[in-house]
Amino acid sequence: MRVFEETARSSECAARAGRLHTVHGEVPTPAFMPVGTQATVKSLTPEDLHGLGARILLGNTYHLYLRPGHERIRRLGGLHRFMGWDGPILTDSGGFQVYSLAALARIEEEGAVFRSHVDGSLHRLTPELAVEVQEALGSDVMMCLDTCIPYPAGEAEVARASGLTTRWAARCLAARRRPELRLFGIVQGGMDPVWRRRSAEELAALGFDGYALGGLSVGEPKALMLEMVETARPCLPADRPVYAMGVGTPEDLVECVARGVDLFDCVLPTRNARNGQLFTSFGRIVIKNARYKEDPGPVDPACTCYTCRHFSRAYLRHLFVARELLAYRLNTIHNLHYFLELMRRMREAIERDAFEAFRRDFYQRREGTP
Amino acid sequence: MRVFEETARSSECAARAGRLHTVHGEVPTPAFMPVGTQATVKSLTPEDLHGLGARILLGNTYHLYLRPGHERIRRLGGLHRFMGWDGPILTDSGGFQVYSLAALARIEEEGAVFRSHVDGSLHRLTPELAVEVQEALGSDVMMCLDTCIPYPAGEAEVARASGLTTRWAARCLAARRRPELRLFGIVQGGMDPVWRRRSAEELAALGFDGYALGGLSVGEPKALMLEMVETARPCLPADRPVYAMGVGTPEDLVECVARGVDLFDCVLPTRNARNGQLFTSFGRIVIKNARYKEDPGPVDPACTCYTCRHFSRAYLRHLFVARELLAYRLNTIHNLHYFLELMRRMREAIERDAFEAFRRDFYQRREGTP
Ligand SMILES: [Zn+2]
Ligand SMILES: [Zn+2]
Repeated sequence: MRVFEETARSSECAARAGRLHTVHGEVPTPAFMPVGTQATVKSLTPEDLHGLGARILLGNTYHLYLRPGHERIRRLGGLHRFMGWDGPILTDSGGFQVYSLAALARIEEEGAVFRSHVDGSLHRLTPELAVEVQEALGSDVMMCLDTCIPYPAGEAEVARASGLTTRWAARCLAARRRPELRLFGIVQGGMDPVWRRRSAEELAALGFDGYALGGLSVGEPKALMLEMVETARPCLPADRPVYAMGVGTPEDLVECVARGVDLFDCVLPTRNARNGQLFTSFGRIVIKNARYKEDPGPVDPACTCYTCRHFSRAYLRHLFVARELLAYRLNTIHNLHYFLELMRRMREAIERDAFEAFRRDFYQRREGTP
Repeated sequence: MRVFEETARSSECAARAGRLHTVHGEVPTPAFMPVGTQATVKSLTPEDLHGLGARILLGNTYHLYLRPGHERIRRLGGLHRFMGWDGPILTDSGGFQVYSLAALARIEEEGAVFRSHVDGSLHRLTPELAVEVQEALGSDVMMCLDTCIPYPAGEAEVARASGLTTRWAARCLAARRRPELRLFGIVQGGMDPVWRRRSAEELAALGFDGYALGGLSVGEPKALMLEMVETARPCLPADRPVYAMGVGTPEDLVECVARGVDLFDCVLPTRNARNGQLFTSFGRIVIKNARYKEDPGPVDPACTCYTCRHFSRAYLRHLFVARELLAYRLNTIHNLHYFLELMRRMREAIERDAFEAFRRDFYQRREGTP
């Protein structure tokens, strides 16, 4: 089974539409993956996610390894059965969470040594273990273990992290036991075009089912992030999917799709739902704002989600102010609908070869006000 | 439109089935009302509630009066539109919450003076205001303002509270402006059979659409609670619905139905869902218990709810331990399904005139173990 097929390509930019094939079905791309950190997309059921048009979810290896444990999930039939999701699942490798969440993280040639943020226990995550964990989970798409660096970082740090990421990627390939599960290499290289290109070329030479762009959206200026995408993208094989990890805002998605990226994940829609920030066609709104106290209209008049079809801004504000559980859920439904609908409209625009018209319209709407 | 019609009556006990008619449709009784304190049944959408077979919800006047305010809800089209629920809603009067939640509550002949538990502001809730608030909400079934007393209470306290409740009930009747909304009187009388009977008779003489039994499930022995139901029930008109406020456990529901009660509400299924206590045909289970860590079975093999059809005890335990929002929702779905299904089975048993067989079976199952 081929990993990926391109079904349409823009004549105006590098945007393309395609299909990612996995053992749990195919995913039309470009696609956005809702984040299901602890084997759940916060507050939503698998039924909700299907209803929203989600086709693939992201799970966090680091969290699932620590709790409830990958061996336990394997014994319970794998991550799909455990969480009741029958579509494809992509898991990250845990590298980013070790970097951002764990205490006392130490990166050695052998792997990453860290203490659990849950109970303080000591762990060593090697490339081989990252693959073993993801195979136990039964991830449709697995990620190689990579090393992350802060922004900004000096050249020595960039060089060390990129080199180590390539060596770990080779070890991940060698450790793989279930070839039906896709394995993606992760391009690092900081914000240095030379190292980005080199990292992409080294990974492409190793030969992966797909490629991820790591170390982006870590605080760098937007133009720099896009420059890194533009630098790395052409070094990666055209017949493989490319995934921009942790990217990003709606604007980021549009700009990365224009540069040939196929897959995305980001906590923004789900995290902002919990903070009461809602995405709309005209920009973000903060639902707890007093101006919405008696606003009988929906969050976004242009939105067709369950939340907008049934509830007013006044009600959503009430739920948020009263700290009701339903607030998080209705906000999450709306925000994920926004992201998934944005991707659907981009796919459609690419298929009609009208991506630039879509992009102009996208930015024009955002100049309006609620 | 008649308030209530009896459709079946047990030949073995006082259990009866019927229909409560409201402007938002009819409710088969005996019925259990999920509690939607702040214009939401915690974590569930109206769609979930319909799916669970809920036919009528309870709203809390005290909470809605304080936040977001009854006038605001009226301007937004009433409570039904505000919360997106098109079925009947019963609201309590706020008397119990003033007693249990508010600070500095002082009961005067005129009404209850209290400070908001939200912001400390000073309020006076009179019988007239209780009706005004509930009419602004558009409640299908409104409750008279009553006064609550602790258990145990001396006879003077019981006498004073019962007398005042009757005088307030008369003022509620006089204050009513929307006769299409049902108004129920609340029987008080503490745990004193003489005062219970007297309270019921005084309220029946005033003439209400239905009658509630208040001041039960406040810590008294179960036998005493049932004795109060048995005492008051025959003093109330047979052609009107009777509602046991805040009652209760599954056993309480069975015993009160056997004594002729038609309506119930209780926070147990929703509150216990948040505490991880799940109701089953064989008793309660505590989902965070280590024994469920790798249990692949459903909460209750006999249950047909969404949660039991899709998820294992191991997954529910994981969600609960990881403090995931979905835990509360899946637990709430299961617990409400249990209560609503219990009522459905009681209605069916009454219609077949097999209530005693149902009751025996109910207790027998609870002697088994998971
Ligand atoms: Zn929406
Ligand atoms: Zn169940």
